[in-house]
Amino acid sequence: MRTRTQVGIIGAGPAGLLLQHMLARHGVDSVLVENRSREYCEKRQRAGVLEHGTVELLKEIGLGDRMMREGLLHSGIYLQFAGERHHLDFPSLTGGRTLTVYAQTEVVKDAIAAGHPIFFEVSDTAVRDIDTERPVLSFTDADGVAHEVECDAIAGCDGFHGVSRPSMPSLRVSERTYPFGWLGILATVPPSTDELIYAHSPHGFAMHSMRSPEVSRLYIQVDPDEKIDDWSDARIWEQLQIRLGHPGWTLNEGPITEKGITPMRSFVAEPMRSGRLFLAGDAAHIVPPTGAKGLNLAVADVKVLADALVRLLVEGKSDLADAYSETCLTRVWRSTWFSWYMTSMLHRFPVSSFSDPAEADFQEHLQIAQLRQVTSSEAAARNLAENYAGWPLP
Amino acid sequence: MRTRTQVGIIGAGPAGLLLQHMLARHGVDSVLVENRSREYCEKRQRAGVLEHGTVELLKEIGLGDRMMREGLLHSGIYLQFAGERHHLDFPSLTGGRTLTVYAQTEVVKDAIAAGHPIFFEVSDTAVRDIDTERPVLSFTDADGVAHEVECDAIAGCDGFHGVSRPSMPSLRVSERTYPFGWLGILATVPPSTDELIYAHSPHGFAMHSMRSPEVSRLYIQVDPDEKIDDWSDARIWEQLQIRLGHPGWTLNEGPITEKGITPMRSFVAEPMRSGRLFLAGDAAHIVPPTGAKGLNLAVADVKVLADALVRLLVEGKSDLADAYSETCLTRVWRSTWFSWYMTSMLHRFPVSSFSDPAEADFQEHLQIAQLRQVTSSEAAARNLAENYAGWPLP
Repeated sequence: MRTRTQVGIIGAGPAGLLLQHMLARHGVDSVLVENRSREYCEKRQRAGVLEHGTVELLKEIGLGDRMMREGLLHSGIYLQFAGERHHLDFPSLTGGRTLTVYAQTEVVKDAIAAGHPIFFEVSDTAVRDIDTERPVLSFTDADGVAHEVECDAIAGCDGFHGVSRPSMPSLRVSERTYPFGWLGILATVPPSTDELIYAHSPHGFAMHSMRSPEVSRLYIQVDPDEKIDDWSDARIWEQLQIRLGHPGWTLNEGPITEKGITPMRSFVAEPMRSGRLFLAGDAAHIVPPTGAKGLNLAVADVKVLADALVRLLVEGKSDLADAYSETCLTRVWRSTWFSWYMTSMLHRFPVSSFSDPAEADFQEHLQIAQLRQVTSSEAAARNLAENYAGWPLP
Repeated sequence: MRTRTQVGIIGAGPAGLLLQHMLARHGVDSVLVENRSREYCEKRQRAGVLEHGTVELLKEIGLGDRMMREGLLHSGIYLQFAGERHHLDFPSLTGGRTLTVYAQTEVVKDAIAAGHPIFFEVSDTAVRDIDTERPVLSFTDADGVAHEVECDAIAGCDGFHGVSRPSMPSLRVSERTYPFGWLGILATVPPSTDELIYAHSPHGFAMHSMRSPEVSRLYIQVDPDEKIDDWSDARIWEQLQIRLGHPGWTLNEGPITEKGITPMRSFVAEPMRSGRLFLAGDAAHIVPPTGAKGLNLAVADVKVLADALVRLLVEGKSDLADAYSETCLTRVWRSTWFSWYMTSMLHRFPVSSFSDPAEADFQEHLQIAQLRQVTSSEAAARNLAENYAGWPLP
């Protein structure tokens, strides 16, 4: 069947859902398609740290009520290395900015509950005619009905493996793959820390995060090709105890309810727009999770995109749409730098990733020197804090 | 002939000469040996930017008169990239710290003129018995006379290729070799800039420095295995014009009086002391020249070493000598980090140094993102300025 909407949106992650909601608030109608089920989208574990600007946006667009009740307010992070644990206090370093721990999956639930039109469990999603003013989004819905949706614009919010980016005619790709991955677990045990702990250790990076007052989220660095089946719960806790261990502090253990291994990659495709197809979030760029930038960057993208599409479709002016890619990419590269910096500073690089073992020693010393710097120089600490807490949204 | 002194010093670079002078001021006598001629030492072109702390030290020990008359006071640097040129004002970023441009070779002349005992043009320099309280420095003087100098301590200030470091029984080496070198020239032409220009360019890094109001010092990044004979004066100026060029600004050319190619390396050997043999300056660590840390780091080392040796030999207490390596290494690694950071941010890494061309794109974007950050964020600028202007001497 052939239908019509103003904006076709691909992907019911936070980028697509928040874009749809922001557009609706300005009277712009949209159709959102997602190949997974609603249940799957509402359960998948991803990020959990919201920047100040993201929190303000969610409140502003009316999706902040539950977040304000249930989110955990954080005022910094711990950096641990060489037997020391230091707290960076973000409000004092950034002029008052804080973080909110509220799982991405909860943001997704809140946005789906807003009730805008979403087709879950679609297949055969494709875009065409993106160089015209009537691009077409086609898909087959859960009942097997084929749809052709004539749009004014299409937003590709379908992540790294989605169909949108391959539909762009020419892209410049910048990429870095890291020689390690993260093994992440959810455990039913109250967090052993009031704020996130980032730990540099001779055994590799580890991190203590949380999802709620009852649920801990923990990570350890592993080889990227490790198999999760080789990691028993006991082995995971053992490594967490070794890497996070600190005198006078106890890491509480509990039942592991979920575990998985994620590779670490930096990836940026430019430009983020071709004709009437706009990429946002992971569809255009991936950052390694160290630094908690992925979700916040996606939110920044769709804030810019919503403004640009409202301007284009309501006011009939293309200036913001034309500037979309450039506007986003400044922040994208700042976040990409920061995620690379945190990742490079905190992980153990395997000796095999250097041509000379003396380079591995060099890298490890450099990391400790940087960690000493951000924990002893106010300027260095402030630079880290400003980037972590995030810049105001555009 | 067999003689006796308190401290045997190897190397008449700034480290050895300043150490000798500082020791003499506390009544500690020394013998300094150098395998080059006095003329060579007083002419070789090396660094030229003195940190605030280095300047204060030279004044304090009575070697600052000519520097104060002839040195050029600088209050920052220019960073140039992507068609922009930004000034970082160090006094406002660091609470008043400045830099002084005064060639290393002039510091050397001033120190030699102080008249302490120096044997130039020695050969067969060796150290032995460093694990005793009477280490021996042996050498053959310019007249062919063999000397055996019984010392209380020996200071290895003989640079990266000297005999001191190989005399240490066990060292941990951390090293990084960069895939480029610097082609440096001296030109008889007034500098075209009031302060140093560090330029990131698609053609590779370039830098405009100076030695005096009449002499410019300029550098371009080249492949590390380039031959200087392949670089005519015309070709050098052409690359300098392309890389340093900026609208409304003119690079003045003049006769080139000296040119050479230097490889770029980060290197740290630990510990810096074994028994009664102490390493200082380039003998223990090398930084790439980006960031002007090499000379200043050597001065910091010998300041710590002079204090430690006076304490050991005058007061009979070994605490500072025992702590020498650790005391120095904190600063060494901070400077090593900073030199690596400046080098990595400003040079073009050849595509061949990456396993994937997309990583070269990633690296270049990361550099621009960092440069934008230090020229737009006060915290990032301050962190750079504090490191560049240097920390107070120990």
